[in-house]
Amino acid sequence: MTYSFSERGSAQAVEEGRALAPKFDADGLVTCVATDAASGDVLMVAHMNAEALARTIETGKAWYYSRSRRALWRKGESSGHVQRVVEMRIDCDQDAVWIKVEQAGAGACHTGRRSCFYRTVPLKQAGAVKLEFADEKTFDPGKVYGKS
Amino acid sequence: MTYSFSERGSAQAVEEGRALAPKFDADGLVTCVATDAASGDVLMVAHMNAEALARTIETGKAWYYSRSRRALWRKGESSGHVQRVVEMRIDCDQDAVWIKVEQAGAGACHTGRRSCFYRTVPLKQAGAVKLEFADEKTFDPGKVYGKS
Repeated sequence: MTYSFSERGSAQAVEEGRALAPKFDADGLVTCVATDAASGDVLMVAHMNAEALARTIETGKAWYYSRSRRALWRKGESSGHVQRVVEMRIDCDQDAVWIKVEQAGAGACHTGRRSCFYRTVPLKQAGAVKLEFADEKTFDPGKVYGKS
Repeated sequence: MTYSFSERGSAQAVEEGRALAPKFDADGLVTCVATDAASGDVLMVAHMNAEALARTIETGKAWYYSRSRRALWRKGESSGHVQRVVEMRIDCDQDAVWIKVEQAGAGACHTGRRSCFYRTVPLKQAGAVKLEFADEKTFDPGKVYGKS
């Protein structure tokens, strides 16, 4: 796997140019938002290091970097829930990418839901916030992730 | 402004409970994805500290924390391009929030576009990646942001 990104130039060059010059943070990561290409829903927010970003661009499948496991991973490598990238976009200062994906299987979330964002946060309410569940489980994570 | 979030319990409690127990990173931040409530497009990815999150929940308007300026800011405070939050969701491990917003004004991006994600990254191509512009400017940032 070979990859190289452009050096970061001026703000003008980064924002208005055509060179891919990602701004990796102190841990070497950019933020990635994955949305469902069909519904538009946000499925997950994760991180990519340079290699994950390069592999995603080269293969058209989503690769991430796990901060907790300190490891590169291909989405779906244990669950089979691969993400095919339909479109990738990068933001103005190039520290975040947005991928629209076709999500294989019943969902993206390790808890067994289609999206990681299955709870709403009520707004403008007095007192302690109580989350509300908006989405049902769509698969049994014990069966899907229990294989490894 | 007073606010308090729940203590983080077990993974089970964080993922399957109703308590809002955000996982702020070493810099005290969670990631926030703002999408357009009408189109579903990702408008921007930014960060919230505890106060920005609390203010957003309490007011129903988007507040963020700028890492570069090290300051709390209300989206639109200089541009007028306020974001009214239609719905807020939080993810499984509670380190990212998704807000669906009604974006006031002509756009969310300081470069003058509706979304910060105005360039696509071509996939599965040999050689150096050249970004492609997908969105036109919708306002003159010099006029909108030049007032302060």
